[in-house]
Amino acid sequence: MGRIFKERTSVDEALRLFLEHISPLKKTEEISLETCTGRVLAEDVISERNVPHYRRAAMDGYAVRASDTMGASPTNPVMLQLSDRVEEGSLTWVHTGAAVPEGADAVVMVEDTIAVGNLVEIRAQVYPTRNVGQVGEDIKKGDVVFEEGHLLRPCDAAVLALLGLDRAKVFKKPVVAVIPTGDELVSRQKGRDVLLPGMVLETNGLMSSLYVNKWGGIPRYLDIVPDSPESIKMAIEANMDTDMILLSGGTSVGKRDHGPEVVAALGELLVHGIGVSPGKPAAIGVINNVPVVCLPGYPVAGLVALYLFVRPGIRKLAAIPEISELILKRRLAAKVSSKIGYVNFIRVVFEGDKVRPLTGAGAGVLSSVAKADGYVLVPENIEGYDEGEEVDVFLIE
Amino acid sequence: MGRIFKERTSVDEALRLFLEHISPLKKTEEISLETCTGRVLAEDVISERNVPHYRRAAMDGYAVRASDTMGASPTNPVMLQLSDRVEEGSLTWVHTGAAVPEGADAVVMVEDTIAVGNLVEIRAQVYPTRNVGQVGEDIKKGDVVFEEGHLLRPCDAAVLALLGLDRAKVFKKPVVAVIPTGDELVSRQKGRDVLLPGMVLETNGLMSSLYVNKWGGIPRYLDIVPDSPESIKMAIEANMDTDMILLSGGTSVGKRDHGPEVVAALGELLVHGIGVSPGKPAAIGVINNVPVVCLPGYPVAGLVALYLFVRPGIRKLAAIPEISELILKRRLAAKVSSKIGYVNFIRVVFEGDKVRPLTGAGAGVLSSVAKADGYVLVPENIEGYDEGEEVDVFLIE
Repeated sequence: MGRIFKERTSVDEALRLFLEHISPLKKTEEISLETCTGRVLAEDVISERNVPHYRRAAMDGYAVRASDTMGASPTNPVMLQLSDRVEEGSLTWVHTGAAVPEGADAVVMVEDTIAVGNLVEIRAQVYPTRNVGQVGEDIKKGDVVFEEGHLLRPCDAAVLALLGLDRAKVFKKPVVAVIPTGDELVSRQKGRDVLLPGMVLETNGLMSSLYVNKWGGIPRYLDIVPDSPESIKMAIEANMDTDMILLSGGTSVGKRDHGPEVVAALGELLVHGIGVSPGKPAAIGVINNVPVVCLPGYPVAGLVALYLFVRPGIRKLAAIPEISELILKRRLAAKVSSKIGYVNFIRVVFEGDKVRPLTGAGAGVLSSVAKADGYVLVPENIEGYDEGEEVDVFLIE
Repeated sequence: MGRIFKERTSVDEALRLFLEHISPLKKTEEISLETCTGRVLAEDVISERNVPHYRRAAMDGYAVRASDTMGASPTNPVMLQLSDRVEEGSLTWVHTGAAVPEGADAVVMVEDTIAVGNLVEIRAQVYPTRNVGQVGEDIKKGDVVFEEGHLLRPCDAAVLALLGLDRAKVFKKPVVAVIPTGDELVSRQKGRDVLLPGMVLETNGLMSSLYVNKWGGIPRYLDIVPDSPESIKMAIEANMDTDMILLSGGTSVGKRDHGPEVVAALGELLVHGIGVSPGKPAAIGVINNVPVVCLPGYPVAGLVALYLFVRPGIRKLAAIPEISELILKRRLAAKVSSKIGYVNFIRVVFEGDKVRPLTGAGAGVLSSVAKADGYVLVPENIEGYDEGEEVDVFLIE
């Protein structure tokens, strides 16, 4: 007790240090197109086909030789003979998407024709290629259709399928160990009983695991580890096969806070104490190239560390492109005060076209997050924002 | 052939008619918290507990009777006796989150103390309740923590867990039949072979199924149905146990387009022909209370109908709250022209803080969607947007 943080690192610097120690995994696997949504391509995709692979009618109508329609108009129609083949003076019915037969070089849309028995009156002139989609119009053989690193959406799966593929080579998802620590924790399996004073249900590990999953990782959600350096060390060593380790709880400087010291003993403690509120006790380290985040046990502080560090860390491991466009610009419905020297994590709710800050709830009040739609980060060098100021809003997913 | 759309319905009117025929399912199921992300609560959640259920120390320090610290300061400290119990003149060590023992009504933070053997020098005065989180500070017994209809996120799962719950009662996901139709279609299982001219790989059903899944439904992806009214009728009748039916292909007015007429024969055809480009041949109907969408076979037109109708339809069935805040405001990097009388679906890519329209690609060119980040809808009553105009951008997910 009585220990203090050696120094306080800014959020930007902490994130920079953390990401500097993370490399994209680059392990790959092949998966079916049915399961590829949200995954990241691990190779360029080059088409081995033309799509379409035939000349495609763009309209319902008649395939013709364009030269046969020269001068045709409603008042001066040209008569052509319905046939199975298109030669001079003959035409063939085609529907949208059908192959335009050899010999034909244009399609007259049905609205410009009148069929009379085996004869068809053509009432409009067409030029060669009119209403004919050329071979490779959508995708040409040899085209780079997607580049490595592309995040696959359902429409992209359909494009891969058009190329005749049934699988996609993607990057494997990073495996993230989630280790709840704390003598005070009780597993949720026992949570139906009434708890003794001072005992707390383990819920931060659940929250962390669900966020890991949402952000593109595979959580390995482990049993509660007691507050002893030996137990924490064993738990870390048993999970050195993962791609990231999250220790939840025990990150502060109290006599039961052993996470950061164990990280320092096993590897390198990069940061302990971060200029963010809530979330100050968070720590970041690396053990044999495995990045480690110590998440504060207070749930809102833990959430802040998840959003600020774990999310970008998983995205870098998984090579998921960052979509920075998803920041929303909104005006504040009320003033926000903030402590100089700390990035302040302000929970907000949407209110019409503005956001209203939820204030007064401490780092231990998780229900305040449940009420929030998003958050605003107040930079460390300002004292807050005025009512009506435009701010960047991040959604709480 | 030669049939035309009886009338063209505006997008807004078509959507209104469609949603008017959809009721939220309200079928419920209980699921574990581990799988609840993205699901919608089917009941109010009222806490049966106080969280915390005990008086919680907010700091590492000493639990005291506030009255014992009266007048304490660095220059005039008060000495108290370390003990297991807090009575007049004694104090007990507590760490953050621990129970504040009976008799104590405040916590002095460790930074304001000096321990000397069994005595502790108190160097700051505290008032009653100082650094003590009260019972129910986070959640009070009887609080409505979530209301029916709340979309569950990982932080919400943690809140439910705090209440001692291990399951959540949520609305069932709607089951959506995806029926590809068309004599020209070849299943992807055969797609490695070279296709004959005029034959097309079935990819719209795959795309539709993946979007159904992404938007909160359970796709039932069916085999290809040939272009005959009888076959389509049978396929629909075999799937009347679903909550929505998507017929892909055969929606236009050509001689092989039977989808809308079959819908009209089995139920009610609400709309055929919609003022949107691409996507005009889409149709909407209802058969015995099951909503039906006929998706155009051209993939971009099919995608448009998925976004404009199927997505809101699934969200209404599933009671998923609409998050209208996710529209992005961006300026156009180039002019966009648009046909009066049609809502135009313009594919765009992000370019710095602007969006650039991708023009020149027809309804058959799915690769143009794969290149796009989002889309802009140009209303039917204007001829386009100028370069630099601010527009609403929707992401292509």
